[in-house]
Amino acid sequence: MKYYIGVDIGGTNIAVGVVDENFDIKCKGSIKTNAPRSAESICDDIAGLCKSLCEKNGIDYGDILGVGVASPGIIKDGVVVFASNLQFDNVPLKAMLEARTGKKCAVCNDANAAALAEYVAGAGKGYHSLVAVTIGTGVGGGIVLEGKIWEGFNGAGAEIGHIVTVPGGRLCTCGNRGCLETYCSATALINDTKEAMINNPDSKLWEICGHTDNVTGKSAYDAAEMGDEVAKNVIKKFIKYLSIGVANIITLLQPEVVCIGGGMSAEGETLIAPLDKLVKESGVIRSLSKRPKIRAAGLFNDAGIVGAAAEVIAED
Amino acid sequence: MKYYIGVDIGGTNIAVGVVDENFDIKCKGSIKTNAPRSAESICDDIAGLCKSLCEKNGIDYGDILGVGVASPGIIKDGVVVFASNLQFDNVPLKAMLEARTGKKCAVCNDANAAALAEYVAGAGKGYHSLVAVTIGTGVGGGIVLEGKIWEGFNGAGAEIGHIVTVPGGRLCTCGNRGCLETYCSATALINDTKEAMINNPDSKLWEICGHTDNVTGKSAYDAAEMGDEVAKNVIKKFIKYLSIGVANIITLLQPEVVCIGGGMSAEGETLIAPLDKLVKESGVIRSLSKRPKIRAAGLFNDAGIVGAAAEVIAED
Repeated sequence: MKYYIGVDIGGTNIAVGVVDENFDIKCKGSIKTNAPRSAESICDDIAGLCKSLCEKNGIDYGDILGVGVASPGIIKDGVVVFASNLQFDNVPLKAMLEARTGKKCAVCNDANAAALAEYVAGAGKGYHSLVAVTIGTGVGGGIVLEGKIWEGFNGAGAEIGHIVTVPGGRLCTCGNRGCLETYCSATALINDTKEAMINNPDSKLWEICGHTDNVTGKSAYDAAEMGDEVAKNVIKKFIKYLSIGVANIITLLQPEVVCIGGGMSAEGETLIAPLDKLVKESGVIRSLSKRPKIRAAGLFNDAGIVGAAAEVIAED
Repeated sequence: MKYYIGVDIGGTNIAVGVVDENFDIKCKGSIKTNAPRSAESICDDIAGLCKSLCEKNGIDYGDILGVGVASPGIIKDGVVVFASNLQFDNVPLKAMLEARTGKKCAVCNDANAAALAEYVAGAGKGYHSLVAVTIGTGVGGGIVLEGKIWEGFNGAGAEIGHIVTVPGGRLCTCGNRGCLETYCSATALINDTKEAMINNPDSKLWEICGHTDNVTGKSAYDAAEMGDEVAKNVIKKFIKYLSIGVANIITLLQPEVVCIGGGMSAEGETLIAPLDKLVKESGVIRSLSKRPKIRAAGLFNDAGIVGAAAEVIAED
């Protein structure tokens, strides 16, 4: 059996897993990121964990064919050009890890890695192409075209959350107005739910949350399930804007699968079915005989490990 | 020298050219399309013209290594799935032309061919990737990623004109509201110019056009050059919406070059410079150290021939 290691560098933890060529995770381990600290120190720890994880689980380190790394930030040719939460600035992560692990390494952006993981082992497995839309605090994503991550000439592509969806709309952290994530992130859903509560003292949202401080991305779904019209309208608006974003991606790229990930994807068909309906009714998409499939993400916390491993396999 | 033939099937004419491996056109000819008529009859004529063109220009037909064809409509795997103005419905154009020409053939969508032509021999020559935005009666385009046309899993990608830019905005022929082409086509510019004339009896547009019936896509530019504020505002709005569309394409794909083609690209820097400025000031693009270049298209009527030839060379 051939083994690969996937490393997922997060703001809080660094997760490492040994993956076989079918993308099954054989074992996992993690350490604290403790950022900010030097890239040398982080790389020393990653290499150490790769070796100790194999040893502890009876895997011959000599059988590891490569180490893939998913990192936040803009990555180009194995270099982390910029990653604000790690305070990395032009860090040659691939070369640094190759020196320490003695293995062929590959580095890719974490959102791209998650998209690649869905392509090889999740919602897009067996399909031609996939765009992942990840809904969390913000909206992120990744593009996989015929098995290859597309990140643009500069490594900065797939910034799906910053596609302007409502010109002149809500102010975004990027300085623009009307970016998709100002309408379709969990943050936006929470803010819209709070606003709807304040404007509707009779809403069941008050029963569920008690106070606007307790609103989560799930609150509106819970209230809607109880038949609350206020909550239903919050969700309806959320899905309407998301459908515009997804339809625009499809109109441009026509990937075979659009995969919705992040915490919100736990809503499953309650989110996907109405989204799919709106997208399929939209403009030029309506007239197509073959339309992209919209699916919930299949992998969750392991997507970074699997995608990072898939990236080093792809470069093998 | 290696030669290839490029065929550009238009609604009115079919243009055929012999191209060398540097994409220089050695000779050209054309026939009337006379659509609608049978695909067999059109293919017979194309094959006949390929042979007679070589003969007339002293090129040994045996030296032709392939024939590329640019066709309107949705193309998938050499089949014209649907092309409304030719009334083609699942026509196996590649196989039909290979049988008649005795050459390896390739078929691609005409907008994609024009984008590929810009990539190999025009505004994108020598660059990593290119998205072409073609502004005419509508807005079309093509995507070329590392030398390869991206048309999606179903052949229907790059419908740039139908990216919704203003939700709830102007009604589009596709049934959606707010598609890019309802704001940024030559048609939209002409309509906006007429409306501005009607609302502003003192505008210099009246001197230039005399009557709203005489407005063209150039009128607002001509009046703006004479200092007319009304015309300047029409152009400003046009470029503002175009910049949102272009910035969205960049945010998603980060191609190294965005190429603006169609009749409007004749305005050159008068159009490109302010567009480039707005896009570079936009959201996440502003913070990039390497930004895409925005350029006017370099090839005009010959883009179909060159792009079709490039497609058969790429598949060689």
